Amino acid sequence: MHLILLRHGQSEWNLANRFTGWTDVDLTDAGREEAHRAGIKIREAGLRPQYFFTSYLRRAIHTLQIAADAMDLAYVQVFKDWHLNERHYGALQGLNKKDTADRYGDEQVHIWRRSYDVQPPALSPDDDRAPANQPMYGRLTDDELPLTESLKDTIERVRPCWEERIVPALHIYDTVLVAAHGNSLRALVMMLKKLSPADVLELEIPTGSPYVLDVDNRMHVISDNYL
Amino acid sequence: MHLILLRHGQSEWNLANRFTGWTDVDLTDAGREEAHRAGIKIREAGLRPQYFFTSYLRRAIHTLQIAADAMDLAYVQVFKDWHLNERHYGALQGLNKKDTADRYGDEQVHIWRRSYDVQPPALSPDDDRAPANQPMYGRLTDDELPLTESLKDTIERVRPCWEERIVPALHIYDTVLVAAHGNSLRALVMMLKKLSPADVLELEIPTGSPYVLDVDNRMHVISDNYL
Repeated sequence: MHLILLRHGQSEWNLANRFTGWTDVDLTDAGREEAHRAGIKIREAGLRPQYFFTSYLRRAIHTLQIAADAMDLAYVQVFKDWHLNERHYGALQGLNKKDTADRYGDEQVHIWRRSYDVQPPALSPDDDRAPANQPMYGRLTDDELPLTESLKDTIERVRPCWEERIVPALHIYDTVLVAAHGNSLRALVMMLKKLSPADVLELEIPTGSPYVLDVDNRMHVISDNYL
Repeated sequence: MHLILLRHGQSEWNLANRFTGWTDVDLTDAGREEAHRAGIKIREAGLRPQYFFTSYLRRAIHTLQIAADAMDLAYVQVFKDWHLNERHYGALQGLNKKDTADRYGDEQVHIWRRSYDVQPPALSPDDDRAPANQPMYGRLTDDELPLTESLKDTIERVRPCWEERIVPALHIYDTVLVAAHGNSLRALVMMLKKLSPADVLELEIPTGSPYVLDVDNRMHVISDNYL
């Protein structure tokens, strides 16, 4: 069975160097081109995913749609799951990374970005940016919706999607593609490869390069490589 | 509850005046523009679909994706169902409409296009164009896959999607949008409005104009209008 992980490419806020998290910004033209090339690479590798997963965020959804078109697989079923969203960056979302460093200090920002279990400052629950105040998350319960997340929180939130959705889909469909975000994809790799927190902090999945993991029936990784 | 029907706009073969059926041609730029305007109309009417249906054919899938973006609803779940495909036009698929008239005579072509239960000539089962020979229909059984269809056949094939998928989704999601094709949408309207075969032959759903049907819990149509 083959699990293909695809990290979305450049977004409007990558370009502006702002903390994005759950902010629903779109891809740039460069990001769309990365998605197209990724689809071509998967097709040229002879892989044909039969089921797709993505997040609720349009930069991942559009990456998937563009890659699916490049693979000639527009008709393949897609499941969109908010559990695959990017790490929620709390009150840092929207801030320029330089301004954040000026306000909080380089060392503090480094801790938020590079520690496993430290959360950035939370959004206030009455903030318009809080997920509970956005219609797209209107069917979820308060306790499911983060106001900030450490990397550890993100990984724990991805777990039910892995266990209840992706593993069963692999058993049915054999080749499955997940188009998502740097930290939600790290979570999947951590679970598959049984990485330690220190390992996962070192792991950086490149954009636009599909990461193919060949797994057995018990989800042991037999081999893995980037296309 | 609101059911919104959206017929895809101009495709490459509409432009070339060829019988399309299940041939998987894409939208033209004009067709993409129709999809975008349809999404804007739905948003401006204050409707927010919470679940989407479409066919396996990219002209309908892309219409839905473009309209969803225009509605700011890229994250809404999509179910792709081959039961919503266009009427299968058998061996006529790919022929220019004028060439078909020259070969078979105007009267015969009129019968195929305007009768309720007459099938055009069937594709041979070993034809590359036969659905069973296409990977996208690889999981379906032979008896499900048409080699040609009358309008009546199309309507009977749409019925399970209506009864088992769309009606339950309306009960859960309240506002549901179906992006599909002239004849599969006719089938839905026939079932909803209890049209006779003669009525359904008269019914022509325009492209790019979302058709909104307000229905009660028992799927009786309370009112209907085009946006």
